[in-house]
Amino acid sequence: MSILDRIDSPSDLKDLGPGELRALAGEIRQRIVETVSRNGGHLSSNLGVVELTLAIHRSFDSPRDAIVWDVGHQCYAHKLLTGRREAFESIRRPGGLSGFPKRAESVHDAFDTGHASTSISAALGLAEARHRLGRPGKVIAVIGDGALTGGMAMEALSHAGQLGLPLVVVLNDNKMSISPNVGALSRYLSRLSATARYQALRSRIDAVVRGLPLAGPWLYSRMVRAKRAVKALFFKENLFSDLGFEYAGPIDGHNIPEMLAVFREVRALDRPVVVHVVTRKGKGYDLAEEDPARYHGVAPMRCSDGKLEARPAATFTEAFSEALLRAAACDERVVAVTAAMAKGTGLEAFRSAFPGRLYDVGIAEEHAVTFAAGLAAGGLRPVVAIYSTFMQRAVDQVFHDAALPGLPVVFALDRSGAVGEDGETHQGLYDIALFRPMPRLSILAPASAGELALSLEWALSERVPGGEAAGGGPVIIRYPKGRCPREEEAYAEPIRPGRGVFVRRSGADALLVAMGGLVSLAAEASDLLLREQAAAAPGPAPGGADVYDLRFVSPFDEEFFLEAAAPYRRIIVLEEGVASGGLGEGIAALIARRLPRASVRVAGFPSEPEAQASRDELVERAGLSAAGIAERVRAAEAEDRLEGRIFVFRSAAGGAAGAGR
Amino acid sequence: MSILDRIDSPSDLKDLGPGELRALAGEIRQRIVETVSRNGGHLSSNLGVVELTLAIHRSFDSPRDAIVWDVGHQCYAHKLLTGRREAFESIRRPGGLSGFPKRAESVHDAFDTGHASTSISAALGLAEARHRLGRPGKVIAVIGDGALTGGMAMEALSHAGQLGLPLVVVLNDNKMSISPNVGALSRYLSRLSATARYQALRSRIDAVVRGLPLAGPWLYSRMVRAKRAVKALFFKENLFSDLGFEYAGPIDGHNIPEMLAVFREVRALDRPVVVHVVTRKGKGYDLAEEDPARYHGVAPMRCSDGKLEARPAATFTEAFSEALLRAAACDERVVAVTAAMAKGTGLEAFRSAFPGRLYDVGIAEEHAVTFAAGLAAGGLRPVVAIYSTFMQRAVDQVFHDAALPGLPVVFALDRSGAVGEDGETHQGLYDIALFRPMPRLSILAPASAGELALSLEWALSERVPGGEAAGGGPVIIRYPKGRCPREEEAYAEPIRPGRGVFVRRSGADALLVAMGGLVSLAAEASDLLLREQAAAAPGPAPGGADVYDLRFVSPFDEEFFLEAAAPYRRIIVLEEGVASGGLGEGIAALIARRLPRASVRVAGFPSEPEAQASRDELVERAGLSAAGIAERVRAAEAEDRLEGRIFVFRSAAGGAAGAGR
Repeated sequence: MSILDRIDSPSDLKDLGPGELRALAGEIRQRIVETVSRNGGHLSSNLGVVELTLAIHRSFDSPRDAIVWDVGHQCYAHKLLTGRREAFESIRRPGGLSGFPKRAESVHDAFDTGHASTSISAALGLAEARHRLGRPGKVIAVIGDGALTGGMAMEALSHAGQLGLPLVVVLNDNKMSISPNVGALSRYLSRLSATARYQALRSRIDAVVRGLPLAGPWLYSRMVRAKRAVKALFFKENLFSDLGFEYAGPIDGHNIPEMLAVFREVRALDRPVVVHVVTRKGKGYDLAEEDPARYHGVAPMRCSDGKLEARPAATFTEAFSEALLRAAACDERVVAVTAAMAKGTGLEAFRSAFPGRLYDVGIAEEHAVTFAAGLAAGGLRPVVAIYSTFMQRAVDQVFHDAALPGLPVVFALDRSGAVGEDGETHQGLYDIALFRPMPRLSILAPASAGELALSLEWALSERVPGGEAAGGGPVIIRYPKGRCPREEEAYAEPIRPGRGVFVRRSGADALLVAMGGLVSLAAEASDLLLREQAAAAPGPAPGGADVYDLRFVSPFDEEFFLEAAAPYRRIIVLEEGVASGGLGEGIAALIARRLPRASVRVAGFPSEPEAQASRDELVERAGLSAAGIAERVRAAEAEDRLEGRIFVFRSAAGGAAGAGR
Repeated sequence: MSILDRIDSPSDLKDLGPGELRALAGEIRQRIVETVSRNGGHLSSNLGVVELTLAIHRSFDSPRDAIVWDVGHQCYAHKLLTGRREAFESIRRPGGLSGFPKRAESVHDAFDTGHASTSISAALGLAEARHRLGRPGKVIAVIGDGALTGGMAMEALSHAGQLGLPLVVVLNDNKMSISPNVGALSRYLSRLSATARYQALRSRIDAVVRGLPLAGPWLYSRMVRAKRAVKALFFKENLFSDLGFEYAGPIDGHNIPEMLAVFREVRALDRPVVVHVVTRKGKGYDLAEEDPARYHGVAPMRCSDGKLEARPAATFTEAFSEALLRAAACDERVVAVTAAMAKGTGLEAFRSAFPGRLYDVGIAEEHAVTFAAGLAAGGLRPVVAIYSTFMQRAVDQVFHDAALPGLPVVFALDRSGAVGEDGETHQGLYDIALFRPMPRLSILAPASAGELALSLEWALSERVPGGEAAGGGPVIIRYPKGRCPREEEAYAEPIRPGRGVFVRRSGADALLVAMGGLVSLAAEASDLLLREQAAAAPGPAPGGADVYDLRFVSPFDEEFFLEAAAPYRRIIVLEEGVASGGLGEGIAALIARRLPRASVRVAGFPSEPEAQASRDELVERAGLSAAGIAERVRAAEAEDRLEGRIFVFRSAAGGAAGAGR
């Protein structure tokens, strides 16, 4: 029986000696590597905090003491230690454990996370609630150096410094957020780590360690020695102390006895404290250690060589990456901005090709957007690549700093639409609803790699409408995480603001109005229905469906659309996002007013987010796969027939007398 | 001729001696007081930066050097000095100058602002664009100590420290953002100001000043002496130097010669620098100086005694304030959170009644929201009061930290809907569209003080749906900046989730579906139409309109609504926000699908924001005044008649044969 098999809750850690703790770390690491290689998931971040997680759970008393994991993708060891060992193999699988902390999943998950930089705010709230309600227990926020660059984390530090509650902020400094870390704050942390005090302490502890056997009671003495050294770790004058925190560190985040000694001191403090822990991301898994960014989020892979099991065809991300390279080669003013997602958004190639023209501002989406607005106001043509879900962080900046002043910033929203295994916190289903109401902001949802390239070209061209003389207002180009569909002739037609193109047009009764990743699925559905018609016996065959690719979510050329839609009896809008507040509702309102004889339906994703599943599964569940769309067309026809709509409207449109139902 | 009358552009300042500059400051101050007392506007903030503005424009060379004013409400002296002296009397008036910097208004307005904490990001973008394009000129960001607590400002400082461009950040430290400033960062700044170094320098300069006549060439020697002292103002070890900035200060922001001397040094620097300037908000206007928060934004008032000219009837803000006091008296768990807007949101009374239960986190909306989520997760019942427009800053925090985990946080969104003279940056027209798509989040738009009180009571009760066992999910209560309308019986009916109430119900053909501040206007319109009917000759009188108060934007009980709406021939939804993405479009889509025989129209505000005007004017322009709504009802009836809708639908509904048009 392994040690891990004996751990049903954190309290079971109390009986383990130092050697057992170290062995347990090895078991946890192995379990994580095995599971992630099967299910996909975050590898490096989890491997980096195994010892830290053990030290925290051994030192504190969850759930009495609450642990808030910033971002949350590093919670695997925490889940293994808090009664979810058996369920762990289901992580990120449909119906399985979430890859992030969820209060609904365990009392040990004190706060739901997923996006960066929220932990100190949430932990401070929990601490104040404990204080006010007279409940016992400490609150610990574990935050990476990357997430600390998010402004919200600094807002929270300033507030926490003022309140003075005994909050423990564990700064997990792995010199690496998702991209190599950036910003003066990060350099500042490095300087802290390099202090002579730290160096001296490290060599002292190392000397102690070298003089001891590898396991057994002797290690206790190492802890005692370390404990004496701990006092020296607290010092006063730095950025955190300026903000009202005690500061301890830096300490080695892979040395359990050292951490236990420091946390013992910290537990006794009655003031806010930052514990600066230095870890190595991917620790213990060599491939991951060499290139942690590559293994930040991984698709299922083989454990042996780290290669992806299936190399996907060209993705929208690659299409964007290539289109941007071409644009930047032609126009010196084109620069790129990202918020710690250079790799995920396909900007690494840009960085290589145009060193110095990529700005990675760290996990600081608000700043990324307004910085880009400044670049644009200054005459450059910035392209800001941020995942759809993280752009939710900068809604006001897009509105206030780019849209209102009409500045020509291009936003590339990768991972729009259904996203998959990261679950509800990472869906890209809200961007259309969030950004469509904004003035002077164009939003395109290209259907293919070719249309994406055209969209970017248009966005970077000297457009006229909606703002600046040079370049027009801001443009969002949103596209899904996924493979690009086969190109169609229609996708190559020139961009005309606010107007879409027909992808299928055969004079059917029904029109499928689609955007982005749903266009090719609608085309498949149309083809499916056509084959059905061909196979049917002669006579009244079920009607097919034509397909209209919207291209633009905003602006929306109403008259052009009405003319295109006028011949159809029924219109189904396929929304690649939540239906509530989406373009589909706007189109339905327009049709109700201007084409009252047509029936109109909106098919989108529910507002209530679904738990993790693959993108294809999510699309299928929403009834938006090719088969699902075809079924919607059939059902709509049946419904209209039942309601007598077809008869009434035919007679009215024909101008002749019509019988009632 | 006054000195101010000779200043057509900042370059005209170069010829003025120190005495003239001081006299000019007095003239500017007088002009601001006169104009603000007529037009309303921001008084204290503008009076505080008169000398600072003069010193910046005298030291730098706008528009070659770009000045970015954070928030922007302190730009009046800047506008007076940059060719807008004559137009200044039109400030904040319809068609007049904006109360904020606008690039469209002048080349001297380098970046549009309105919300806090954006200036360093924008200035950095402008600086990098200058650098990359080889254009000359410095960039200066002027930011208050309050705005510096916004996380975005810290994100920008960290990035700027890394880029190392010669950015000038003027920290305008007036010990007072809008509410008395809070947070450890603010206390840190106070400590900086209190350094011995500063004290010594101040007394040295004061001694010099005391020894000199009040004006004339002697003052030059004062500048020379000060200049020698300037070197001493630069020192190394503090929070800003940790982030990679040079630091100069603190200096007296009302002492022009001292500032000129420091800016001369700063201009020569080739690295980022923070100039820490201490000013007194409201300087030079005694009433404002005593209570700057009161005069932050003022309605038109008489110059003599500072009293408001017209004391308004009870406002929604007051209604909220009182309802919250009652709730807090009954439930110890109720606490309040605000982001530097305690006074504006009516929380001062709460602070007095329940000291220690109000958390003012400074200008840090993101943190405010997630901190409150933490409080809720910890068992408290936080009420977060933030203006609608500033809540745009925390969209992701509402989604990710309150809505997804279903935490019972109550958000009170004051100043929702049309807002008025602050212009396009401060409208509350987007909150419905932004928050309606979110899951597990209830949104109420009460129509009156009574309904607001009921809504808050419901929000703080032990609701069941959508989340936590104790309390349900988060709730937004949104209400306009304005007077409460007369109560109606319907407003007092018990709250039922997702369901509205009829305010007028007489069996008319048309139904007005309204929310929030538009309900009482719809009721007025209904009464107006009724009087018309009564006055009309016997025969086919124009139909009236019934009125339905939605109460809930979200959730929305579709079946309940459909049953209520079924008897009506035409439905007009009045959206108190932008039409695009609002509830009206959702209702139109629903009616198109389920009540196809009714015509449906959505009347909301345009996405394109209007320049400043009073709330009543904005409502009128959007066709949403009582008279405008009545006209919409008449027009809809005429349109439907013209389209033959009434005839066709009557016959179809009646089941009898109907003739074509």
